[in-house]
Amino acid sequence: MSGYSHILVAVDLTEESTGVVNRACALCKAYSAELSCVHVIEPLSLAYGGDIPMDLSAIQEQIQETTRSHLSEFGAMFNIDPDNQHLIFGRPETEIDTLANQIGADLIVVGSHGRHGLALILGSTANGVLHGAPCDVLAVRVGI
Amino acid sequence: MSGYSHILVAVDLTEESTGVVNRACALCKAYSAELSCVHVIEPLSLAYGGDIPMDLSAIQEQIQETTRSHLSEFGAMFNIDPDNQHLIFGRPETEIDTLANQIGADLIVVGSHGRHGLALILGSTANGVLHGAPCDVLAVRVGI
Repeated sequence: MSGYSHILVAVDLTEESTGVVNRACALCKAYSAELSCVHVIEPLSLAYGGDIPMDLSAIQEQIQETTRSHLSEFGAMFNIDPDNQHLIFGRPETEIDTLANQIGADLIVVGSHGRHGLALILGSTANGVLHGAPCDVLAVRVGI
Repeated sequence: MSGYSHILVAVDLTEESTGVVNRACALCKAYSAELSCVHVIEPLSLAYGGDIPMDLSAIQEQIQETTRSHLSEFGAMFNIDPDNQHLIFGRPETEIDTLANQIGADLIVVGSHGRHGLALILGSTANGVLHGAPCDVLAVRVGI
């Protein structure tokens, strides 16, 4: 009851994510918990507010393909089951909470820049993860 | 490196704190870490902005005495060394971070109300703990 059974770690696929996932892995080992990871791609139409009058689908597709490949490599480094590697489009703060609900995660692990407190590595909007989280949240300090 | 060696749990001494400390205890056991706890009393002069033209020292002293006794009972329930039980006056968000630095804690565990996201059990101002934290922060969901 006081441990965790399914841990969801949010990654931005940079070098800093390694420290965050290491923490998550250590927790999984300690509690014999299942590990899932998620990377959220913010759609260009969201990022730019839909102001650009062009078809972004080709660029978006390329981003998705490249990112899926990076996530797969990243997941393999930490022996994360491919079925537990999630690549999602949307707003990080909403998508991470929704996914945590869907997979029944009882802990979300996210990175937090020391200099900026909880300005999460996923982008500042991801602060919202903490406000809507259906479960416990561990903010792992990364960087200086 | 990926575990924790000294965990500081912030408590408000209500029943809800029990779940938060249970999480902290489980982590301490998993990592063979040292456990410290802290309760922060916000001085009346701060809480009321110093607008009350009366000497609050007697009331404050009484609050301190009663709280120290509660903290001692609470700490004993979880086998927390009396030297590791901290009662502090001040603003929670500042004091918890300062204490974490002083004792070399590498993880702060705080309660978080599900309904209010990170409206910490210590009071809403304690959200600041997360922004100035010198280390990782685990927000444990309490209540409904």
